[in-house]
Amino acid sequence: MQIGMIGIGRMGGDMVRRLLRTGHRCVVYGRQAAAVEALVAEGAVGTLNFSEFIACLAAPRVVWLMVPAAAVDGVIAEIAPLLAPGDILVDGGNSRYHDAIRRSSALGHQGIRYLDVGTSGGVWGLERGYCLMIGGEPEAVEMLDPIFSALAPGSASVVPTPGRQQKGSTAEQGYLHCGPSGAGHFVKMIHNGIEYGLMAAYAEGFNILRHAGAGNREQVHDAETTPLQHPEHFRYDFNLADIAELWRRGSVIPSWLLDLSAQAFANQPSLEGFSGRVSDSGEGRWTIAAAIEAGVPAPVLSAALYQRFSSRGQGDFADQLLSALRYQFGGHIEKPTAKED
Amino acid sequence: MQIGMIGIGRMGGDMVRRLLRTGHRCVVYGRQAAAVEALVAEGAVGTLNFSEFIACLAAPRVVWLMVPAAAVDGVIAEIAPLLAPGDILVDGGNSRYHDAIRRSSALGHQGIRYLDVGTSGGVWGLERGYCLMIGGEPEAVEMLDPIFSALAPGSASVVPTPGRQQKGSTAEQGYLHCGPSGAGHFVKMIHNGIEYGLMAAYAEGFNILRHAGAGNREQVHDAETTPLQHPEHFRYDFNLADIAELWRRGSVIPSWLLDLSAQAFANQPSLEGFSGRVSDSGEGRWTIAAAIEAGVPAPVLSAALYQRFSSRGQGDFADQLLSALRYQFGGHIEKPTAKED
Amino acid sequence: MQIGMIGIGRMGGDMVRRLLRTGHRCVVYGRQAAAVEALVAEGAVGTLNFSEFIACLAAPRVVWLMVPAAAVDGVIAEIAPLLAPGDILVDGGNSRYHDAIRRSSALGHQGIRYLDVGTSGGVWGLERGYCLMIGGEPEAVEMLDPIFSALAPGSASVVPTPGRQQKGSTAEQGYLHCGPSGAGHFVKMIHNGIEYGLMAAYAEGFNILRHAGAGNREQVHDAETTPLQHPEHFRYDFNLADIAELWRRGSVIPSWLLDLSAQAFANQPSLEGFSGRVSDSGEGRWTIAAAIEAGVPAPVLSAALYQRFSSRGQGDFADQLLSALRYQFGGHIEKPTAKED
Amino acid sequence: MQIGMIGIGRMGGDMVRRLLRTGHRCVVYGRQAAAVEALVAEGAVGTLNFSEFIACLAAPRVVWLMVPAAAVDGVIAEIAPLLAPGDILVDGGNSRYHDAIRRSSALGHQGIRYLDVGTSGGVWGLERGYCLMIGGEPEAVEMLDPIFSALAPGSASVVPTPGRQQKGSTAEQGYLHCGPSGAGHFVKMIHNGIEYGLMAAYAEGFNILRHAGAGNREQVHDAETTPLQHPEHFRYDFNLADIAELWRRGSVIPSWLLDLSAQAFANQPSLEGFSGRVSDSGEGRWTIAAAIEAGVPAPVLSAALYQRFSSRGQGDFADQLLSALRYQFGGHIEKPTAKED
Repeated sequence: MQIGMIGIGRMGGDMVRRLLRTGHRCVVYGRQAAAVEALVAEGAVGTLNFSEFIACLAAPRVVWLMVPAAAVDGVIAEIAPLLAPGDILVDGGNSRYHDAIRRSSALGHQGIRYLDVGTSGGVWGLERGYCLMIGGEPEAVEMLDPIFSALAPGSASVVPTPGRQQKGSTAEQGYLHCGPSGAGHFVKMIHNGIEYGLMAAYAEGFNILRHAGAGNREQVHDAETTPLQHPEHFRYDFNLADIAELWRRGSVIPSWLLDLSAQAFANQPSLEGFSGRVSDSGEGRWTIAAAIEAGVPAPVLSAALYQRFSSRGQGDFADQLLSALRYQFGGHIEKPTAKED
Repeated sequence: MQIGMIGIGRMGGDMVRRLLRTGHRCVVYGRQAAAVEALVAEGAVGTLNFSEFIACLAAPRVVWLMVPAAAVDGVIAEIAPLLAPGDILVDGGNSRYHDAIRRSSALGHQGIRYLDVGTSGGVWGLERGYCLMIGGEPEAVEMLDPIFSALAPGSASVVPTPGRQQKGSTAEQGYLHCGPSGAGHFVKMIHNGIEYGLMAAYAEGFNILRHAGAGNREQVHDAETTPLQHPEHFRYDFNLADIAELWRRGSVIPSWLLDLSAQAFANQPSLEGFSGRVSDSGEGRWTIAAAIEAGVPAPVLSAALYQRFSSRGQGDFADQLLSALRYQFGGHIEKPTAKED
Repeated sequence: MQIGMIGIGRMGGDMVRRLLRTGHRCVVYGRQAAAVEALVAEGAVGTLNFSEFIACLAAPRVVWLMVPAAAVDGVIAEIAPLLAPGDILVDGGNSRYHDAIRRSSALGHQGIRYLDVGTSGGVWGLERGYCLMIGGEPEAVEMLDPIFSALAPGSASVVPTPGRQQKGSTAEQGYLHCGPSGAGHFVKMIHNGIEYGLMAAYAEGFNILRHAGAGNREQVHDAETTPLQHPEHFRYDFNLADIAELWRRGSVIPSWLLDLSAQAFANQPSLEGFSGRVSDSGEGRWTIAAAIEAGVPAPVLSAALYQRFSSRGQGDFADQLLSALRYQFGGHIEKPTAKED
Repeated sequence: MQIGMIGIGRMGGDMVRRLLRTGHRCVVYGRQAAAVEALVAEGAVGTLNFSEFIACLAAPRVVWLMVPAAAVDGVIAEIAPLLAPGDILVDGGNSRYHDAIRRSSALGHQGIRYLDVGTSGGVWGLERGYCLMIGGEPEAVEMLDPIFSALAPGSASVVPTPGRQQKGSTAEQGYLHCGPSGAGHFVKMIHNGIEYGLMAAYAEGFNILRHAGAGNREQVHDAETTPLQHPEHFRYDFNLADIAELWRRGSVIPSWLLDLSAQAFANQPSLEGFSGRVSDSGEGRWTIAAAIEAGVPAPVLSAALYQRFSSRGQGDFADQLLSALRYQFGGHIEKPTAKED
């Protein structure tokens, strides 16, 4: 099957590769000539402007966007006039699901079928396959089945779920039509929200292990500082790399993220290459926004998100006010900012 | 190698089975004659009182306890006088790690070597193997290596970690000497703390998906109720079983707990067999207590724990005070307690 | 000065009363004839439809809305065509601040000046005065100064802030022009967000006091239940009414909400009249939504909001999944749902 | 009445002053000769060692300790042998309530009556009076009534609570016998736990206001950064000093802590004198520990505590692991650490 890919960076490029390897024909467009050439060398048809790109695609066209969320509307504004009724436009990036509802309605007036496809896999997708969460009209979804099937990991990638009846659902292959427009990005949004929570759970646990030797540092005794009640309980010097490795087997908490934690610690046991300024790319925020609008509690996912905001200094002013208040009511002077341990 | 097991319930019984299957000799003690008999039928030596139990073990004895945390001190009080210097006593249950420090010191005066072994695996351990987190003196740990090795999953159970140098560490087999007394239960404690966080992350995510149809219920318009700003954003009816299955492949969030979620939804898509009163067995609490004593933030793990407390009605009085305050300052009358969705 | 009030329920009615008592002339519109008549008896001009209402107001008209947020757009749609350039329209309710930005722009095209006035005071406002947070064009704000001044508590209501230089700011009177359109409702939104946090802080504290006798109930000893490590630490039977009263004097935590807590406990020490189903009226949600959009951590305010969602059963499905998972990995059966204490 | 005070720092010194001004006789001991001399100049009897101190007190002696929590056991070890049956020892500092239970039992064997008195008031107590939360035997509490009454603010300090029946309780004076040993420090612990929550609620709210101009900075458009969806919603430049002042009147959130916030902003609108490294002195931690042991949710109070830990860099390693994981699965490189706004 033929597909056109706009955006051939980290994600888009590897998706094209995976499609080429499974015999699909890919037309690619990207801003970086080098990236285009690299894919051409692997069998893609390369194009450097949209009209050329569209001209290379046979009707009904399939155009897949893998561009930053903030760029999608701009690309659609340029590409939509070049499309014809019956063409399918896929947003495989990390757009907010609201946008899918709006866009599919707008493009529908033109006869263009719009699909929102939450795509997970990162730099590992080429090898592992991509998990695809799909929203939109069933007919368009069905038409793209060969593409989804090629991108997805396939059923052999994990052991079957005991007791599961719906054998035959594409969920077992790693792709799923989740519902009408927006459903794909909604499910991807929640996926990322969960991801934040899982990451934070491991991060907090390893951080406590990392501080388990707090009883070995000298105790300060003044009215400002809480001494450890039992320094003898905090005299451990744990090997985090070994513990991450250990938990991968037979415990309750093995996961792909734990595998990656084990790799991170194997590479660099004290993670000194990272400053701890953690970005967030939108879905975590939208997950919380959705939870709040629906009136559903999400304390764990929120705490995970806020930790990232704080890591970027966005809570500093709040902390300053706390210090100012402590000074106001108790005459407490801030302690110097040296780290505790 | 010979080992004596006290406590042959869900966990202890299966551990004995796994040891028997790998050629070890097991003497067992349990309160339930039927449980003892079942293991005798599989090759264990059964005993019904402690003196008989001790008499069946050759010196230096290895006695492994798999009893509830609250029962450990009582059993030790009975069994310790029957032990001899050089014997090894293992607490494989979920004791607080403080207790291991205290007990190993007390038993050390008697020449008894005490190990704390955090044991993970649940009802799946017989088949998957048990993840063992071990604390105590190196000599005793080394002596028990054949036992640990037999209980653990072994290195073939998961793919090797790329870049990991310490090949040869037992972590790759699924057991690890984590440090001095208490280290095993400390690491198990953190394991369970993380487990709570992971479970809550999935639970919150699936709960938001479960409420994604909130826009389909009728909106109430009064000053007490926040209407959905955009009901058109909440019109999804997701198949949670399929989504759980989907995420198992190629996404960022596959894990053993996700596998189990997929099984739970496969068995019962709406989980109607569960009321949602969630127990907690101690380690989650101790994780937070440790974090607080060491002055380390753990917002995600705490939120996960508190959710469990709330699920048992332990926050109800706080909620009543909120309602009372709203009545005091705003004359707000509580809405009837019907669920929203 | 003359003002027209649309919406004369709990808040609007008392605001009219306070204005009448300070010599202002009020034209009122309300759906309930009885409410209109009551205010007429106190000196207001009563009207029962919008054209009559408008006809009673002299140009440039001042129309103040005190209606539920969800009703504001509807009222504006009806009333705006009856207004003339130069008229001032005030939304004193709990609208989202986004709406003020949108409405002031739309109405501005008609020459109508739109102010968003966050109004705090509840059932106590008639006596204490109302705290007014004002957004919009300075000229219109200035024109309404006599009204704001009459509604606000005035500077004598609390002691002056030592060290404060800006004497003369209306903040000392209890009303403030906070900025352009939306600023008033933004500040009111944050006010309510903080309110949720404060309420939750007291509620959690009193709830812990309420459970301080947990050591007096019988302890259960099984692998599912965490026994109290030190029941002797939880044998208190605190008088919450006395403690609330006590803290009102000389402590760090006196507040108006603590005064109200003391009243609530004085009325009903165990709050048995309240079920604990806590409503939320929007601003708390919008506060979190604003924090998330701006990338600012707000863990305390979020936790307070989520507690309210949970109190209404919105987290139950998450809890059910936790129970289902515990059953899957550990064979744990849910304990009966009796409350613990 | 005569009282001996050990520890005449910020708190103890002013308490002696307040007692002297109300006609009580005070014997003081302190390590700093200058502090002793200052109080002698105001009428106290100064002593420089414990035997002199004890010799100056008439039996039955009343000895009040105002020393750091970590120093209390040391002082008791020195002073207890000098006391006689019937003497009263008061710990007015911030000890953990567990210690009061232990100490009152130990000292009881000697016939010494031990009271734990949680004391709130900070640098303002001399003027406002101290809020006293008292635990111990009723007889000893009664004997000290004149002292408690002199230290406390008295009933005139705030308006009476409508509907309160127990007129005559000392709670109206600002001191209260809360229960048996430990009850005083338990209630003080919860007081401080609530204090943390209240402070954090204000701090988070003001921090959001502080970032309400985020839409005015230039937006970055890449896959790593979430752009503001609606920059036009974040164009405010709020005057925090005026808003703090405003809320003191007629709103739902006036409090003593808000008064102090207004003072802090009046002194320094951008709080530039504070770095935001926030200490915690123990009671906040113990509050959470108590909540956890009793199985009671305290998400708000915990979040407030963790924010302080994070402000001291105690969560940095967790953040580093998050960055390491993002790099592992997505090839995400950390953004430079410049603050966002």
